[in-house]
Amino acid sequence: MARINEHYSKLAAGYLFPEIGRRVRQFQQEHPQAQIKKLGIGNTTEALTPSILAGLHKSIDRLGDVSTYSGYGDEQGDHALREALKAFYQDTRSITIDADEFFISDGAKPDSGNIQSIFSSDAVIAIQDPAYPVYVDSNVIAGRTSGFDQASGEYRDFIYMPCNEENGFIPEVPQGHADLIYLCSPNNPTGAVASKEQLKAFVDYAREHRSVIIFDAAYAEYISDPSLPKSIYEIEGARECAIEINSFSKFAGFTGVRLGWSIVPRELTVEGAAPGEVHRLWFRRQCTFFNGASNIVQSGGIAALSQDGLKECYELIGYYMENARIIRSAAVALGLTVYGGDNAPYLWVKAPEGISSWEFFDRLLEQAHVVGTPGVGFGPAGEGYLRLSAFGHREDITAAVKSIQDHLSL
Amino acid sequence: MARINEHYSKLAAGYLFPEIGRRVRQFQQEHPQAQIKKLGIGNTTEALTPSILAGLHKSIDRLGDVSTYSGYGDEQGDHALREALKAFYQDTRSITIDADEFFISDGAKPDSGNIQSIFSSDAVIAIQDPAYPVYVDSNVIAGRTSGFDQASGEYRDFIYMPCNEENGFIPEVPQGHADLIYLCSPNNPTGAVASKEQLKAFVDYAREHRSVIIFDAAYAEYISDPSLPKSIYEIEGARECAIEINSFSKFAGFTGVRLGWSIVPRELTVEGAAPGEVHRLWFRRQCTFFNGASNIVQSGGIAALSQDGLKECYELIGYYMENARIIRSAAVALGLTVYGGDNAPYLWVKAPEGISSWEFFDRLLEQAHVVGTPGVGFGPAGEGYLRLSAFGHREDITAAVKSIQDHLSL
Repeated sequence: MARINEHYSKLAAGYLFPEIGRRVRQFQQEHPQAQIKKLGIGNTTEALTPSILAGLHKSIDRLGDVSTYSGYGDEQGDHALREALKAFYQDTRSITIDADEFFISDGAKPDSGNIQSIFSSDAVIAIQDPAYPVYVDSNVIAGRTSGFDQASGEYRDFIYMPCNEENGFIPEVPQGHADLIYLCSPNNPTGAVASKEQLKAFVDYAREHRSVIIFDAAYAEYISDPSLPKSIYEIEGARECAIEINSFSKFAGFTGVRLGWSIVPRELTVEGAAPGEVHRLWFRRQCTFFNGASNIVQSGGIAALSQDGLKECYELIGYYMENARIIRSAAVALGLTVYGGDNAPYLWVKAPEGISSWEFFDRLLEQAHVVGTPGVGFGPAGEGYLRLSAFGHREDITAAVKSIQDHLSL
Repeated sequence: MARINEHYSKLAAGYLFPEIGRRVRQFQQEHPQAQIKKLGIGNTTEALTPSILAGLHKSIDRLGDVSTYSGYGDEQGDHALREALKAFYQDTRSITIDADEFFISDGAKPDSGNIQSIFSSDAVIAIQDPAYPVYVDSNVIAGRTSGFDQASGEYRDFIYMPCNEENGFIPEVPQGHADLIYLCSPNNPTGAVASKEQLKAFVDYAREHRSVIIFDAAYAEYISDPSLPKSIYEIEGARECAIEINSFSKFAGFTGVRLGWSIVPRELTVEGAAPGEVHRLWFRRQCTFFNGASNIVQSGGIAALSQDGLKECYELIGYYMENARIIRSAAVALGLTVYGGDNAPYLWVKAPEGISSWEFFDRLLEQAHVVGTPGVGFGPAGEGYLRLSAFGHREDITAAVKSIQDHLSL
C-alpha cells in the first residue's frame, strides 16, 4: 500500500495567487468595462536582446549539422558558460570563483528548492519574513516542521526573521541557533538590499554557528548603488559558509527560457564533513536528479555574458528600473510610504493607516483597477504592505500609474 | 551546526563510467596508435531534423518580438504541447490521456529521480536488476535503505527483480509486498521489451497490493513490433496504479536539448489519499521545485509531434535501429549470444563462458579497441553481460563492427 509523503499535508494552502485571480475575475465580471492594469507580477515582458537571439539561433544551427551536433552535456553545465560566469564575477564583483564552483541549472527556483535536500532532515531553518515561498515550502515538504500554526501564520520549528520598517527590511541574525539561513538580496518582495555590514553580521553568525547561508541573488544586477554587494562572496569568510544562487531570468529576460546557476565554494564545510564534501554532494545531487540545462539555452547564456550581451541586458534592466521610478514617484506624490524600487524591481508600499494588505489590494483594484500583490501573502510580517512590480511595458506602467493618480483615494 | 543528508553516504560509489574512462585512457596511453571506437554510450549523435529546427528557430523569433514575447509559462507545461501529446497517444497507442494528465519536464531522468519524493519515506521499492541507476540512487538518497550490502551488490530493504535469460529479461512480479515498482520497457540496459501479458501481471499485482508502478517508457518509439505495448496504459486498469515517464531525448534527439513528460492519471489512488490526490501532489511538487521546461524547447517538442516532425523522428529511429541490426548480425556471426536490439537501441551481449562483464569489456577493448558497457555496472544480475549501444554515426558503427570481426577472439 503506497502512501503519500505525509509532509505535503502540512503545507498551508498557497492561496495568494489563486485568491488574487479570483478577486480580479470577480471584479471584472461585475465591471466588464473596467480596464484592469497589472502591477502584481514578477515576470519579464520585454523581448530578448539581439546578441542573445543570435546566440540561440547559432546554437540551433549547430544542432542541425551532424558535424557540430551534441547530445548530453555535463550535468554541472557547459564549461564555456562556467568560464564566462567566472569572468563575469571577476569583472562585475571583483571576486574569484573557480569555474568548477559554478553549477548551471534551469533556474534559481529549482536550485532554491533543491539545495536543502543535501542537508540533514533535522536542520533548523531560518527564513526572512516576508519571503519568496519556495524556501519555506521546500523545507516543509522535506519534513523540517511539525506543522503550520494558524494563529501566528508561521510554521512551527522554523525561525522567522522579521523584516520591517525598524530594521529597513533587512533582518537581524537569528535569535538562537539556525543551521540553514535563507537570505534574498535584493529582496523579493520588499525590494530591500543588504549592505556589506549587514551581510557580514550573517557571515559572522554562520561561521560561529557553523551554519550555511543560502544566498539568493537573483536580482543582483538591479543594484546600481556601487556600495551595495551583488554577491555574498564580497564578504570575507563567506566562502566557508555560503551558497549563492542566481539566475538569467530577471537579468536577461530568461523567465520562460530557463537558466540559472548556483555557487558552492570548495571551502564550504559543515559538521562532520570533509572539506569539499558539500561541493561534491551538490554535484552528486545534480548528477542523480538533473541532466543539465538545455544546450540551446546555455548558448543563450554565453551570449548574454558577452560584451554586447551584457550591455543589452543592463539596458533592459534600466528600462524596468525606469518603470520603478515612475511608480515610486507617483506613489510618493500621493502620500504613500514606499520602500524598495531603487536597487530592485519591486516596490514595497505601506498601506494607509489601519488598512490590511488585502484591504489595500481591494481598494487599488476597485478604485484604480490596478492589481498589486498583498504583502501578507509572503509571510505574516508582510501584513500592511502591497508589492508592486516594475516588470511591464512602459505604456502599461504609465496607464496604471495614471489610474492610481486619478482614482485612488487614500 | 549544519550537517549533510546522511543518506548520501550510503550510496555505493558510482564507479561504472569513471572506471570505463580510466581503463580507456590507460589503454590509449599504452597504445597511442590505437583508434578507439565507442559502442558504450547511450547518447544520440545525429542532427536535429528540419521540422524541429524550424520550430525552435520560430520560437526564438517570437521571443525577439515584444508583441509575441512570453515569460514564465505554466509549471506543468505549455497547453499546446500537452494537447499535442494527447493526440500523439491517441494516434500511436489508441489510448486517451487528458491533456492535463501530462506534466512537461526537462527530461525523463529528473522525473524518474523526483517521482519518489511524493511518496512516504517508508515505501518499499522494487526495481529490475539490472536497471538504470537513477531509480536506485534517488531512493537511497531519500532514505529508503539502511545501506549497501557489498557481498550481494544490493541495497538492503529494496526488492530486486532479477532479469535473466530464463525470464527473457522481463522479471516476475515482486516476491512479497512492494509499494513502488520501477519498470523500464524497452529496457535500458537489456533491450528487452515487456509484452502486454507481462505488463498485465504487474498491473494486477499493483492493484492487488495497492502499489504504484513507475513505468519508464523513454525508448517506446523504438518498438516496431505492433504486438508490443508502447505505454502501460494499453493495459486495462493501469490508470489506477501507474505513472508513466517518457522523453524526447532518444525519440527526437533531445538528449542535450532537454524535454520529457510524465503522466499521472486522475484515477491513480494510494492508501489514505483521495482520488486525484497523487495527480494534485505531483502538480504541487512541480510548482514548488520546478519552473517549467524552456519555452524554446517546448516549441521544439510541438514541432517534433507534427506530422512532418514525427515522420522525421521515425526516420532517425530507423537509422539507429539499422545500426543495431549491423551490430547484432556481426555479433551473432561471431557466435556470441545477443539479446535486445530488435525493438530497442541496446544490445545485451552475453560474455563467453566463464568470463565476467569487466573481463569481456577488457578483451573487447584490448583486441578490437571497442568500448562497451559492463552489464554488472547496472546491477548484480547484469554480471556476465556487456551492453552495446546503437547510438552512433553509421561509419563509426561499421568501423567498430569490422574491428570486432577482424580482431576479437572469443
